[in-house]
Amino acid sequence: MDQIRFGFDVVAREPGGSARAAVLATPHGDIETPIFMPVGTKATVKGIPTATVRELGAQIVLANTYHLSMRPGPDVIAALGGIHRFMNWHGPILTDSGGFQVFSHKDAVTLSNEGVRFIAGDYDGSHVFWSPEDNMAIAEKLGADICMQLDQCPGYPAERSFVERAVELSSAWAERCWRAHSRCDQALFGIVQGGMHLDLRLRSLAHLESCGDFIGYGIGGYSVGESHETMFQTLAPLVSEHMPQSKPRYLMGVGNPTTLLKAIAAGVDMFDCVLPTRTGRMGTAFSSEGRLNLRNARFALDDAPIDPGCACPVCSGGYTRALIRHLVVQREMLGGILLSEHNIFYLLDLMKRARRAIIDGRYSAFLSQWLDSPAAQDY
Amino acid sequence: MDQIRFGFDVVAREPGGSARAAVLATPHGDIETPIFMPVGTKATVKGIPTATVRELGAQIVLANTYHLSMRPGPDVIAALGGIHRFMNWHGPILTDSGGFQVFSHKDAVTLSNEGVRFIAGDYDGSHVFWSPEDNMAIAEKLGADICMQLDQCPGYPAERSFVERAVELSSAWAERCWRAHSRCDQALFGIVQGGMHLDLRLRSLAHLESCGDFIGYGIGGYSVGESHETMFQTLAPLVSEHMPQSKPRYLMGVGNPTTLLKAIAAGVDMFDCVLPTRTGRMGTAFSSEGRLNLRNARFALDDAPIDPGCACPVCSGGYTRALIRHLVVQREMLGGILLSEHNIFYLLDLMKRARRAIIDGRYSAFLSQWLDSPAAQDY
Ligand SMILES: [Zn+2]
Ligand SMILES: [Zn+2]
Repeated sequence: MDQIRFGFDVVAREPGGSARAAVLATPHGDIETPIFMPVGTKATVKGIPTATVRELGAQIVLANTYHLSMRPGPDVIAALGGIHRFMNWHGPILTDSGGFQVFSHKDAVTLSNEGVRFIAGDYDGSHVFWSPEDNMAIAEKLGADICMQLDQCPGYPAERSFVERAVELSSAWAERCWRAHSRCDQALFGIVQGGMHLDLRLRSLAHLESCGDFIGYGIGGYSVGESHETMFQTLAPLVSEHMPQSKPRYLMGVGNPTTLLKAIAAGVDMFDCVLPTRTGRMGTAFSSEGRLNLRNARFALDDAPIDPGCACPVCSGGYTRALIRHLVVQREMLGGILLSEHNIFYLLDLMKRARRAIIDGRYSAFLSQWLDSPAAQDY
Repeated sequence: MDQIRFGFDVVAREPGGSARAAVLATPHGDIETPIFMPVGTKATVKGIPTATVRELGAQIVLANTYHLSMRPGPDVIAALGGIHRFMNWHGPILTDSGGFQVFSHKDAVTLSNEGVRFIAGDYDGSHVFWSPEDNMAIAEKLGADICMQLDQCPGYPAERSFVERAVELSSAWAERCWRAHSRCDQALFGIVQGGMHLDLRLRSLAHLESCGDFIGYGIGGYSVGESHETMFQTLAPLVSEHMPQSKPRYLMGVGNPTTLLKAIAAGVDMFDCVLPTRTGRMGTAFSSEGRLNLRNARFALDDAPIDPGCACPVCSGGYTRALIRHLVVQREMLGGILLSEHNIFYLLDLMKRARRAIIDGRYSAFLSQWLDSPAAQDY
């Protein structure tokens, strides 16, 4: 497989630490890491035109394979020239495997070594079967720059034996995905599972390392109900001591600012989460004062921007807390859209500042300062 | 009253016809007419940031006094510096009287010479009373560049006697609004009523002309259920033969392209309507092929823009019919937003082309060409 269009160059490492700044090259452009990836679930970051997503500073967006496989379907997207043209986003794109959404169907899921059978009750109720090979065929039709192996992501808490079986199944599927995947302009990432058990995490990683030469690794199975302390007990040693230096590390489904900065300290490069957009639509903003609920009546006469310290198009564009509160309370979609834009910018700007601090060799001071600030009250 | 910041200069008239191009000067900028005003009902054009509204070519936007009087309330908006700062739109703004929304409460409305009493069942169920003076006090607190008198707008069909009483009431209220209104940086427009009866329309107009020196006139009570032919039987002579040349004429609540162009031929200068945004949210686009329903399955694989002849940010920005269909069918808000943007641009661009044709002395040819084109299939 010729994947010369991908590259991962670490350009700076924190002295005496694990944080790093890198450049991930993809066929649709370079990504400066650490990076947050806004989520465009059904081929759109909800309510935000792609030109605006770009203006907010996004370098790469994520789209959901499960939803796109149901509507409009991988064949339609392939016929229209692939996911970049379809979404009208011409920078890098990452698609998840869809496994997370599939397993969320719970009772309607039947699992075997061959693959997963489920009932798409959130669409037309059709019965669907995905083998790892089927899943790779879908990923290749969509044509994102980066796709993820099919895996099983256990929740929390879970019996160790259940997590162990999920690691075994995910390992077997990783191998089959690796063999099935053939697009040389698309990078396949393996996914490290193993719940809160470091030995299972290492077993998962070792199998991935032995079964193929994945371009990068997702780290799945975190942020599924455990405390942040519990998460970092295994996440920190896994990433800082055991994952290969030469490959990008993508912590899946994590999006609150403080957790991002701590995970960067452990050596994580990439993140995605619906948090900035989902909480934005509910009226919540990240800010230098910590999280703000703009529905609060105290904002009714407040003519300050969402966050006076923020340079986003919303905060610098004349929108007041009073107006945004009015829009959110009146269920006007512009309220949630403006908050989504602010929140996305906020995380992207935070990633830029973290990268600068890493390059300047002062990341641990940057992180300490953050943890001492009211901004860290973000969850 | 010193209203030197307002002016209305007719810069061109169609030879042998009634169409005209003018400039309406307001404290927040000049408006080149004929003009369409996008509607920002609750202080927002639904889903569209104001910078984008400006990019689409809007020169003035409309906001709804009834909704803003309920939430956040005129005192909040006044305390925040007025409607321009509140909406974050720094160009001209027109507020309606709110009468149309009040009367739509139907059974919960009690009408007397003193004013209108209604129950705000769409908000908190409070009992509200508006005299014409109350209504002007609200308009002055909001502080739009242009406000409208409180009037009664009969539906269609209606008994002549009912329409006649509505004219009498509206005339009496016009006089009281005129006396009550005092902001010199705000223009008060009277409203011509009279349904489909030309003599009642002329009686309404004559009373407005005699009771005050209104800066412009709204033409209300059309597009309330009558056919377009019925509408033009009285609208055309009213505007072209009877309304004063020196004042802007605003046809309220009309927004489909062909009606706009015919009304311009009669001498109308200003329009507003929720049509481009409301139908956009439902999946419908104006186009040079006539109205398109983007929900239609025939667009599922169509990689053309909404209207290949359109220069709007959506059509020139890489969005395909296939994507917009997907977004609309999947109830993704971006679909309705992109169609709203296209539709607003389409009407604003049409107004620009109409103005150019008037200035070039070829408006009747322009209108004929339109009526012969598939674009005229717009309702
Ligand atoms: Zn901001
Ligand atoms: Zn367009």
